[in-house]
Amino acid sequence: MLTLSDTGELKAIERISKILVRSGMNTARGLIKGVGDDCAIVETLYKSRDVFLLTSDAVVEGVHFLKNTPPDMVGRKAIGRVLSDIAAMGGTPLWALINFVAPPQTTVRTLDMVYRGAAGIAKQFGLTIVGGDMTTGRLIEIHVFAVGKISRKYVVLRSGARPGDFLFVTGTLGGSFLSGKHLSFTPRVAEGNWLRKWATAMIDISDGLATDVNHIAQNSKVGVRIYLDRIPVSRVLLKYRRSTAVEHALRDGEDYELLFSIPHTQSSKFLREWRKVFSTPCTLIGEVTDRKGKIEYLGESGKIQQHTIKGYEHFI
Amino acid sequence: MLTLSDTGELKAIERISKILVRSGMNTARGLIKGVGDDCAIVETLYKSRDVFLLTSDAVVEGVHFLKNTPPDMVGRKAIGRVLSDIAAMGGTPLWALINFVAPPQTTVRTLDMVYRGAAGIAKQFGLTIVGGDMTTGRLIEIHVFAVGKISRKYVVLRSGARPGDFLFVTGTLGGSFLSGKHLSFTPRVAEGNWLRKWATAMIDISDGLATDVNHIAQNSKVGVRIYLDRIPVSRVLLKYRRSTAVEHALRDGEDYELLFSIPHTQSSKFLREWRKVFSTPCTLIGEVTDRKGKIEYLGESGKIQQHTIKGYEHFI
Repeated sequence: MLTLSDTGELKAIERISKILVRSGMNTARGLIKGVGDDCAIVETLYKSRDVFLLTSDAVVEGVHFLKNTPPDMVGRKAIGRVLSDIAAMGGTPLWALINFVAPPQTTVRTLDMVYRGAAGIAKQFGLTIVGGDMTTGRLIEIHVFAVGKISRKYVVLRSGARPGDFLFVTGTLGGSFLSGKHLSFTPRVAEGNWLRKWATAMIDISDGLATDVNHIAQNSKVGVRIYLDRIPVSRVLLKYRRSTAVEHALRDGEDYELLFSIPHTQSSKFLREWRKVFSTPCTLIGEVTDRKGKIEYLGESGKIQQHTIKGYEHFI
Repeated sequence: MLTLSDTGELKAIERISKILVRSGMNTARGLIKGVGDDCAIVETLYKSRDVFLLTSDAVVEGVHFLKNTPPDMVGRKAIGRVLSDIAAMGGTPLWALINFVAPPQTTVRTLDMVYRGAAGIAKQFGLTIVGGDMTTGRLIEIHVFAVGKISRKYVVLRSGARPGDFLFVTGTLGGSFLSGKHLSFTPRVAEGNWLRKWATAMIDISDGLATDVNHIAQNSKVGVRIYLDRIPVSRVLLKYRRSTAVEHALRDGEDYELLFSIPHTQSSKFLREWRKVFSTPCTLIGEVTDRKGKIEYLGESGKIQQHTIKGYEHFI
């Protein structure tokens, strides 16, 4: 029988989407956007220019952190991931719930540290942890559910990129597990919030640039051309993986940087304004084309085809 | 070192509450009620008589269901649990996210069935599944996060019971694993919604009457007297556990029935009105006293002390 390791996470999500659509879940009152972006979008139900952003994410022992990872960093990462999702829509964080799964022999010190790490970063970004659930399990897992908000007219989807737009990324990419950035990253909430007035499409890079750029192409029904020599590769890769740095930057994932498109006519002005506000690096790495679904990688050695480069996918 | 199996779930939740309070999470803008009830309560942020109810819950293989439990029933149960939480506040379900954890060898048929079961019951109760996340793990787990709403003036907390109130439960209690009710239960959303205009305090019975009645006593700062011979014991217990039926009804948990208090002056009128609207059984099982924190169990053989009867608690 067909298993999740045969189909992979992305096909599994497609299956679920179809089941939800067949149950009428896509036409429910107040739903603006369901499965298929960094957050779901729903009406506030009250006369308001805002909409709510709903997102959930999990960190699992052995997948997203190790047995010896400091528990406060685990809590921090769990909250950081949903903050990154809200950032990728241009939103402002509001509330979160935490489902904590742990074996009975887990120490209360670990419990305390997880929640201290979670509360610390939540507070920093104005997110309030309002509740959750605790359950026995074999491994430690932290599931976080979060609600954010954004003005309806500024919400940034994955689907807004247009041929001719330029593609940018914040920060540097790759080597996140090597450097520890996958634990210590700063979610780009301030940047995402500011970008909501500039970006035509946006996503956070969690599964690797190669996978996430594909999400933008698919959702926007456009093609994308990436200039391999422009990709801002992380310092740790340049130091320890010099010969394969660009491949790692494309595939590694867990960067929690923003990938977004800007109309090319505005790109010079955009970069000038960005540099006035942020010290975070922002790099032009490619452009949006009209070759629907095609991802072209341009390097010194010429073109590399789409399916030779893939990011991280669960179950495979 | 102190572990979760030493402290148990309830003490662990107390520790977390303190950490969140120290981080200022209890005084955040728009937060009405954080950790400590069936749902958290937050302001809608917009001029409205409503407030939002936020809740999360999980079902884990080997704890809440078995390897051979039909996957659609697992999905159904996962959604049913959050519906029961929203029901216990008197609320109306709105949106949900699902975090699905599974080993890579899980069949796509299992995946499909879980989501079909989840979508079926969600639709029945007006809950829209808007998104979620998928992660690799050792066992199947389904984490559900849900948002509901209720008019601010009707929200029913665990803390509103007053001495002299009568205590009622819906349905019958105990033997939920024996009968399969823990999978097939109907969340009391319609009943909870109707009860919001009657009940002074309400909770759903998930950890067993003995534990959940204690939550009402603690939160309302009252005592409770339970008449053991009035407890509506499930048919399966009368048939297969006759001699220990009442003990099971107190301890088993996963009943997903509502336990609530009604001012004694209104109780006759209340029961008359209830019977006009619902065929669901509703039984008077005790009363609220002014003996703070004391739970008295009155049977034919006299009093049983508080700590001799305990419901289900994770980690212990």
